[in-house]
Amino acid sequence: MSMIYRRVALIGLGLIASSMAHAMRRAGLAGEIVGTARTPATRAIAREDGLCDRVTDTAAEAVIGADLVVLCVPVGAMGALAAEIAPHLAPGATVTDVGSVKRSVIDAVAPHLPDSVHFVPAHPLAGTEHSGPRSGFAELFDNRWCLLVPVPGTDASATARLRALWEGMGSNVDEMDADHHDLVLAVTSHAPHLIAYTMVGVADDLRRVTDSEVIKYSAAGFRDFTRIAASDPTMWRDVFLNNREATLEILGRFTEELFALQRAIRTGDGDHLHAYFTRTRAIRRGIIEAGQDTDAPDFGRGTRKISAAPGAAPDPAAAHRQG
Amino acid sequence: MSMIYRRVALIGLGLIASSMAHAMRRAGLAGEIVGTARTPATRAIAREDGLCDRVTDTAAEAVIGADLVVLCVPVGAMGALAAEIAPHLAPGATVTDVGSVKRSVIDAVAPHLPDSVHFVPAHPLAGTEHSGPRSGFAELFDNRWCLLVPVPGTDASATARLRALWEGMGSNVDEMDADHHDLVLAVTSHAPHLIAYTMVGVADDLRRVTDSEVIKYSAAGFRDFTRIAASDPTMWRDVFLNNREATLEILGRFTEELFALQRAIRTGDGDHLHAYFTRTRAIRRGIIEAGQDTDAPDFGRGTRKISAAPGAAPDPAAAHRQG
Repeated sequence: MSMIYRRVALIGLGLIASSMAHAMRRAGLAGEIVGTARTPATRAIAREDGLCDRVTDTAAEAVIGADLVVLCVPVGAMGALAAEIAPHLAPGATVTDVGSVKRSVIDAVAPHLPDSVHFVPAHPLAGTEHSGPRSGFAELFDNRWCLLVPVPGTDASATARLRALWEGMGSNVDEMDADHHDLVLAVTSHAPHLIAYTMVGVADDLRRVTDSEVIKYSAAGFRDFTRIAASDPTMWRDVFLNNREATLEILGRFTEELFALQRAIRTGDGDHLHAYFTRTRAIRRGIIEAGQDTDAPDFGRGTRKISAAPGAAPDPAAAHRQG
Repeated sequence: MSMIYRRVALIGLGLIASSMAHAMRRAGLAGEIVGTARTPATRAIAREDGLCDRVTDTAAEAVIGADLVVLCVPVGAMGALAAEIAPHLAPGATVTDVGSVKRSVIDAVAPHLPDSVHFVPAHPLAGTEHSGPRSGFAELFDNRWCLLVPVPGTDASATARLRALWEGMGSNVDEMDADHHDLVLAVTSHAPHLIAYTMVGVADDLRRVTDSEVIKYSAAGFRDFTRIAASDPTMWRDVFLNNREATLEILGRFTEELFALQRAIRTGDGDHLHAYFTRTRAIRRGIIEAGQDTDAPDFGRGTRKISAAPGAAPDPAAAHRQG
């Protein structure tokens, strides 16, 4: 793989930025990687680990001479960051971001940027529940989608160059409109996360079942919820506040459906339940066929069999769909 | 490990029964394993695979001379099955089950059983989203909890013997009261499953986002929900119909909390969201400390690192807590 950008500035050094640093190095995609973060502790870790070629104390310094600037901060911090770096951006540079919401980021960032730079918003659909400069790894984006959301009038060659970077880091790349992105993500990610957070909170509140019982016997669906609900609180607060409309729409539909299923339980309508569960099972089948997950059965920790099928990795922690 | 039962009859040959057959053989816990299933196709597969030492055409035949009879059918089918086998049970035999709900199983089964047998209800907290006689494997119960729910007056030695069997199959064993069991499971398993089913159904209904988009970009929290929602429809219908009160109570609390979070999103109350998400993150930490899951980060399929820590298996399919 050849170099795509001479100098990449990573602003904010959490899971995504640190994984980008590792992935760009793996494929030799960047001549120099400059990083910065708001807190001195994060910058100190990045320097100690050699995460970037150079760590600067301010975002303004980091972007000087960079032909790619990547905004890797929570969605709610994007606007102020754009205002801070705007005077220091090199003409012809591309500015991108990795935020989970696109319309509000575009609205917050675009007004600050000079006409001499390209703005190509992006969203890599990858992550773990861990955060911070030591949580990244080079393989995070492999075979995952990265969605580019170019605003109308964006220079096509700037978009193509950013696409090449993401492909070089292992991603598949698609383009879509910002509003559609925000709706798709509300369904596939934002609403599910809020639901998981809620369920974990309910369990904690229930005084007749002790926390230790919940924890001890949580090898069920609940355990997956806790993994989801362990994600970064600041990032997720900003996601919900900035994708408000789409998230509330999906949650409204969710509540409607949940009430219908609750009613079926209350009235003993087994046919309704069975038909619903049969339909959702078919959707899962579609996901496996689309190659987004594996059909390998789940195993208990430490007792995993490795399937012979290529890419069919067993899934220990998501195991135990028991009753 | 030495033999604990001379002849074990497995009635119903799905995921749990077939895993029990493998696990009992692994440790030499049963002198003979007899199996039966309602459908001829399942019995034919069991015979072809040699899953049991002997496969009978009826449950009545299977229990003859067995000192342990395990009811491995959906919760709603337990009562009729008990009535069918009751006249054929050997005096002194232990009857147990593996149902996910305990109060209604006890109410359905106990009245049919003769005084000459011991009834010790049980619930192994283990499973996958797969079902059928070929879905089982010997490691399913390793390091998982099995809850014994003996009814008042049960012979202590019968309970101790069943405990030894489950421990021999790799489980940790606890005892608890039936009603408490049903509430604990409503929180840790039944309500989370209904919620996952609901969310997957909502995604399928939403016409502005195509199924293929949902599937393609579902590497988020949503993908875990589809795995949960792929579980056996008949089993889950019966779980909800038979643990109605506890499930509806938990869902009621869940809805209350969800409404409060929705309201925080609508009114832009970021502090409420942040505080809630910080609390749920701490619960996850408790689960890891209790050894019920691993802190190993999530990796993309086919690019997994294996952690050096014993038992710390990475978790590819539950990966991607992205926004």
